[in-house]
Amino acid sequence: MSVTFAQGFSAAGVVAGISSVPGKRDVAVVVNDGPRDAAAGVFTSNRFCAAPVQWSRGVVRDGHAVAVVLNSGGANACTGPEGLGQSKATAERLAQRLGVDSDQVAVCSTGLIGELLPLDRVLSGVDAAYARLGSDDGSGLDAAHAIMTTDKTPKTVRIQGDGYRLGGMVKGSGMIAPQLATMLCVITTDAVVSSDDLRSALESAVDRSFNRIDVDGCMSTNDTVLLLASGASGVEPDLDEFRGNVAAACGSLARQIVGDGEGSSHDVRIMVTGAESEESALVCARAVAASNLLKCAIYGNDPNWGRVVSSLGTVPVSQARFSPADVTVDINGVRVCDGGKPGRDRSEVDMTPREVHIDIDLHVGASEATVWTDDLTLDYVHINADYES
Amino acid sequence: MSVTFAQGFSAAGVVAGISSVPGKRDVAVVVNDGPRDAAAGVFTSNRFCAAPVQWSRGVVRDGHAVAVVLNSGGANACTGPEGLGQSKATAERLAQRLGVDSDQVAVCSTGLIGELLPLDRVLSGVDAAYARLGSDDGSGLDAAHAIMTTDKTPKTVRIQGDGYRLGGMVKGSGMIAPQLATMLCVITTDAVVSSDDLRSALESAVDRSFNRIDVDGCMSTNDTVLLLASGASGVEPDLDEFRGNVAAACGSLARQIVGDGEGSSHDVRIMVTGAESEESALVCARAVAASNLLKCAIYGNDPNWGRVVSSLGTVPVSQARFSPADVTVDINGVRVCDGGKPGRDRSEVDMTPREVHIDIDLHVGASEATVWTDDLTLDYVHINADYES
Repeated sequence: MSVTFAQGFSAAGVVAGISSVPGKRDVAVVVNDGPRDAAAGVFTSNRFCAAPVQWSRGVVRDGHAVAVVLNSGGANACTGPEGLGQSKATAERLAQRLGVDSDQVAVCSTGLIGELLPLDRVLSGVDAAYARLGSDDGSGLDAAHAIMTTDKTPKTVRIQGDGYRLGGMVKGSGMIAPQLATMLCVITTDAVVSSDDLRSALESAVDRSFNRIDVDGCMSTNDTVLLLASGASGVEPDLDEFRGNVAAACGSLARQIVGDGEGSSHDVRIMVTGAESEESALVCARAVAASNLLKCAIYGNDPNWGRVVSSLGTVPVSQARFSPADVTVDINGVRVCDGGKPGRDRSEVDMTPREVHIDIDLHVGASEATVWTDDLTLDYVHINADYES
Repeated sequence: MSVTFAQGFSAAGVVAGISSVPGKRDVAVVVNDGPRDAAAGVFTSNRFCAAPVQWSRGVVRDGHAVAVVLNSGGANACTGPEGLGQSKATAERLAQRLGVDSDQVAVCSTGLIGELLPLDRVLSGVDAAYARLGSDDGSGLDAAHAIMTTDKTPKTVRIQGDGYRLGGMVKGSGMIAPQLATMLCVITTDAVVSSDDLRSALESAVDRSFNRIDVDGCMSTNDTVLLLASGASGVEPDLDEFRGNVAAACGSLARQIVGDGEGSSHDVRIMVTGAESEESALVCARAVAASNLLKCAIYGNDPNWGRVVSSLGTVPVSQARFSPADVTVDINGVRVCDGGKPGRDRSEVDMTPREVHIDIDLHVGASEATVWTDDLTLDYVHINADYES
């Protein structure tokens, strides 16, 4: 499964000794064995973007890439020219083994910001991964394991299209915010698709998946989503169907990130309907999803709609027109706020399911948007007070 | 002390049985005994503003107010026309006792959103407080106690001006964010000052005090800051000196709120210097202050500068021009990030003091701004998962 579900890809994940956890796989390699090598990427908009992001942006700029090296155990962010040199050296090592140019090899890193990588270990890891490359399910799963940090489970996806396949893997658990999450994601397909169509499909899918989850409001320096197409199926897909499948892959992986949000005990869906535009619905949903107070209340199984509307009320009129006296809020199907006033009693709300649905109707239009987030728990604080990331 | 430090004011705080904590004072009254009754107010910009906010805005619109009733134990927010009727009835009761019009009496409430107040208890509390009005220190302190919710300590200020005095009290601990905090604040002065000068002094002071603290990024429905002037000293102050003293009072009270931030173990000062404008410095400081990951790290005594710069990097170029390669970050005096790269080792930073100073120099100009916040702790989550507010 994972990235090797699509034909024309091989992968590996090995223990290189970069991670502070003994025996943890920490270097992954994904290789596009062709016959084609179209590629697209979406990267963090953080101005302190990491060295591997700077490097990989250059790699996919021409719409092509042959391989990706990914490491956990170090983000190689805020490391200056020496850090960029490390990303370049990493790409060069795999390029040598594959007999291609280094500017065809993307690099992704995740871990602590502000420290250089142990380059010798990374390069040895690249060699070891190259030696173990395989197209079987286990090889793809090894790669998905190697990119995990605080993730509790590997996150993968496989989608069967009309004569072609998509596979994918993602890591991400904390430092997850709209405009990408702290995440590394590689999606592969054996469909025959041009670079331009890949890029368009990926950007549209990311905008409605990874850009609509928020674990903790923190944007990373290293976020990267890559889509590689081998063309090995020989099938030129219907473009709408293909775009739908890329969106489904991103949506599944994004949902898995929320499901594994650091320390979380509830996955929370904030759906805003009745807005005058999708953009205004999205602004409202994000404002509610960002409320620490609400997220603590949900952890305490308290359907505290006051914290929903007080967050909604911070959205400026210029960004979302609505009248507070018209707004309704349903929590897990119970209308606890009706026209800006108390509705049914909050004791009627069953907060025991892991999924909590908060449905807000602005009653001004027909547009809607959904954002997923997590609750804020004691474990989230534990993890992030103790873990240097 | 508190609001009775200034001449011409009497106050009381009584147990009315509104709060769920038995024996807790929960109704306060502050009366301006004159000879003048100039007043100014600043209120939440939350669109779901509470009934008492709607009422009190109307009271101070003409620049005058004779008294304030404040209650804890219920916010009277999102309670519709009936809630507004409760605020009006509360003002009417005190107005009757004082022999003034009800539109000269402001009302402030704090507590759970979305429930009506037990009006009988509030009105009995007003009667009881009226009967106990006093100008001594103890009466002022009783009032400061009566407005507390999750606050661990009453928060008061007294400032001796040139021939006149200012006194004040504030409550606030959680739901504290820029653009006012979840807070009720009453500041009194016996200076002779016009309504216009009061308003101008208050707005300027609030902008640089209560609008520059952020405990948890959550804006309340009930935030109110009132400044009342009795003129009892007979002194017309130098206006610049007076404005400075109002700013000092607000600054002290704002700093006390951060010092009592829910569950906090560190007070964190984020100072951004070298910006091209104060506004851009402020945007940067707020972005850093809003980072849950940084706040968890500080709780863990980890001087994690990577989480400082990754937050800074989310500020759009259009809002703050700077080059990541020029930025320096000092934590408690140690330059841990130098020119966007690692500086001195983070192990050199002493994180044991309660105050943590994070100094960011953008190196593009001469403007600066400071924001105060708290760390994010296990107790914050405990308090907000268990407490219905």
